[in-house]
Amino acid sequence: MFSQTVEYALRAVVHLASEAPSGRTTDEIAQATSVPRAYLSKVLQSLVRCGVVKSQRGVGGGMTLAIPAEELTILTVVNAVEPIERIRTCPLGLAAHGVHLCPLHRRLDAALAQVEAAFSSTTLAEVLAEPTKSVPLCPFPHAHPGKKSASRRTT
Amino acid sequence: MFSQTVEYALRAVVHLASEAPSGRTTDEIAQATSVPRAYLSKVLQSLVRCGVVKSQRGVGGGMTLAIPAEELTILTVVNAVEPIERIRTCPLGLAAHGVHLCPLHRRLDAALAQVEAAFSSTTLAEVLAEPTKSVPLCPFPHAHPGKKSASRRTT
Repeated sequence: MFSQTVEYALRAVVHLASEAPSGRTTDEIAQATSVPRAYLSKVLQSLVRCGVVKSQRGVGGGMTLAIPAEELTILTVVNAVEPIERIRTCPLGLAAHGVHLCPLHRRLDAALAQVEAAFSSTTLAEVLAEPTKSVPLCPFPHAHPGKKSASRRTT
Repeated sequence: MFSQTVEYALRAVVHLASEAPSGRTTDEIAQATSVPRAYLSKVLQSLVRCGVVKSQRGVGGGMTLAIPAEELTILTVVNAVEPIERIRTCPLGLAAHGVHLCPLHRRLDAALAQVEAAFSSTTLAEVLAEPTKSVPLCPFPHAHPGKKSASRRTT
């Protein structure tokens, strides 16, 4: 239900959040997130376009988060690449229904609302701060994210 | 987040449930659900393959539900055409994570679990029995589904 694009966008911002405030090149992000470079490049373009990530050229440049990890929610990232489209009006275009959804479409929209609520209540900082043995993107058990662990990444 | 295929499959089974026990041809379903015939035909094939719908040739034949509407959940229909794929193991294939998802993937999987739970707890019969002014697939306000209303459908 969540596309490859959503998965890759989330990996990229998790990596940038864990490396902040340092910038990272597309190659470095691709390596750390196990995402094909060409695909990642397109995903990053969407994230830049929507103001989630910013890109700075030159020495010491690279990609960084444009929104602090403490304020950046999963929903903002998902909506930057593949917006969750709530059902606002009858998908069949039935004039008699309009904004008054039938029981079928009300249930589909309720499921979308649940996902939206779950994603909007979680920030990237929370994802990274959670005590866990499975640190996001990190192939080593018991390791913690951050610049120091970057050199130990194998993928 | 829910594809066109899922939307069309649900419309088709809602129509078949409202017309049960009578069978309906692909043309009749296409007309009642406002779904392009060729697309609908493929969706129906998936539904037949997964045992949600059955097809009978000849006079008085056509498509019918293979599962009573009282037992057929939204989840069964969705999974017949585009299964909700829960995240069981690390999508990056990190051996150190395995089935112990990181906080990011645990949250994505939790959202999928919520949708799965909502869809598995709702049957087609419940969708059709719910008092509403917006009857599924029916362009007329205050109308109720069933064979008698079929002739009044305009789409």
